[in-house]
Amino acid sequence: MDSKQQFLNLSEDAKETFLPHLSADPVIFGFDQNELKVLLVKMNYRKQWMLPGGYIGKHEDLDEAMMRILKDRAGITGVYVEEFAVFGKKNRSEFYFEDFDETLFHKQRFITIGFYALYNASKLHPVPDELSETCEWVFLSQLPDIELAMDHREIIDKALLTLREKISIKPIGYNLLPEKFTLSELQKLYEVILGKELNRGNFYRKIKNLGILKKLDEQRRGGAHKSPDLYTFDEENYAKALENGLNSW
Amino acid sequence: MDSKQQFLNLSEDAKETFLPHLSADPVIFGFDQNELKVLLVKMNYRKQWMLPGGYIGKHEDLDEAMMRILKDRAGITGVYVEEFAVFGKKNRSEFYFEDFDETLFHKQRFITIGFYALYNASKLHPVPDELSETCEWVFLSQLPDIELAMDHREIIDKALLTLREKISIKPIGYNLLPEKFTLSELQKLYEVILGKELNRGNFYRKIKNLGILKKLDEQRRGGAHKSPDLYTFDEENYAKALENGLNSW
Repeated sequence: MDSKQQFLNLSEDAKETFLPHLSADPVIFGFDQNELKVLLVKMNYRKQWMLPGGYIGKHEDLDEAMMRILKDRAGITGVYVEEFAVFGKKNRSEFYFEDFDETLFHKQRFITIGFYALYNASKLHPVPDELSETCEWVFLSQLPDIELAMDHREIIDKALLTLREKISIKPIGYNLLPEKFTLSELQKLYEVILGKELNRGNFYRKIKNLGILKKLDEQRRGGAHKSPDLYTFDEENYAKALENGLNSW
Repeated sequence: MDSKQQFLNLSEDAKETFLPHLSADPVIFGFDQNELKVLLVKMNYRKQWMLPGGYIGKHEDLDEAMMRILKDRAGITGVYVEEFAVFGKKNRSEFYFEDFDETLFHKQRFITIGFYALYNASKLHPVPDELSETCEWVFLSQLPDIELAMDHREIIDKALLTLREKISIKPIGYNLLPEKFTLSELQKLYEVILGKELNRGNFYRKIKNLGILKKLDEQRRGGAHKSPDLYTFDEENYAKALENGLNSW
């Protein structure tokens, strides 16, 4: 079946099933090999790259819809996502479905709700849906070379900005780093998210002040340098910091 | 005209004008007499208190809609608002329009987009629309005694939580305090937003470290105590901090 026919076949059913004018787009960041990736699909239609977004069921809570969309489009479950912004320019989806007339469900004006999450990429195994040729992790550093549909680049940028703000008020790293890690590995995670190098002394001092780390009586052996101390997260304090926020006044 | 008839009259026109299933609710916080207030309307219909929300025009950007809604419902212009959360439980508006049948525009399922702002309440003068008996500032401390429609209490709580998080990563106070203020006045603003008392010494140290204040060669005279120094915001550094965020790693 050609990719255009796929949409025509889905359209009538979509009108029955989903709310009009509303979509949701997940920006799932993956941390992998000390880099950030984002989960994208390459659609059969026009071979275009985009976020694996979807629609909201008429009888579905928004939270349920977000989880179901990730499962439907990317085969991913068990990922906790958070809403971060709404994209509502009136012409944001106008030119995407040029080959169709206005009766296509997918061609209407959509206000899209962006949701995001950051996970260890090596633990999530994306599976494309029938509309997509592939669903895969793309390094952020590769994004400039890829043409993204509609305003999806802006959605990814805004999600990254939100993640960078969040890192000032919430702890990060649990589930991303191995159970035991060095301060230098944790610093690398922060640097990757912030997109800049950090001063080592300042970082060590600040991160220790948060009280979320436990120093282990153990060192990472084998490097050329002095064996660095290993740390683990203090689960109780980490959970408290997640709940109450950091840098509180 | 009775309040029920008002909705019946508006319904058909609303179907032509607005997107279905989508609404927007503004949470405008006012700072006044060292307290926080929120802007509410009391509807003619059921004399119910709620946020002065509205709908999104079919040919209107979301940003435009948010500003227009504030103007229509509360007579307020020139307020810069920010989206903070989406409320999408499937039954969130189910019981509100019990006196109407399903053909009423206002009775459908709405996913609502929350937007918020914090302003000097004494500079904003709300004017009720024709659907409302009154549009006024209500102190947060009075909210527990008021019955709010639907999930509007949850929306206000979430907006306040967002404001509290924001205060850790963005400077606050410009446009809320007089041009010259004491550190103790600024501390009061932070305490009101955070809903807790702060240690004076810690607060003074932290706020000075942000680099957004200029100490004036002037004191506030007239109190029983030693005349406190007056400060003003360093506009350039304040703008930079707004742009880049505080507490940066």
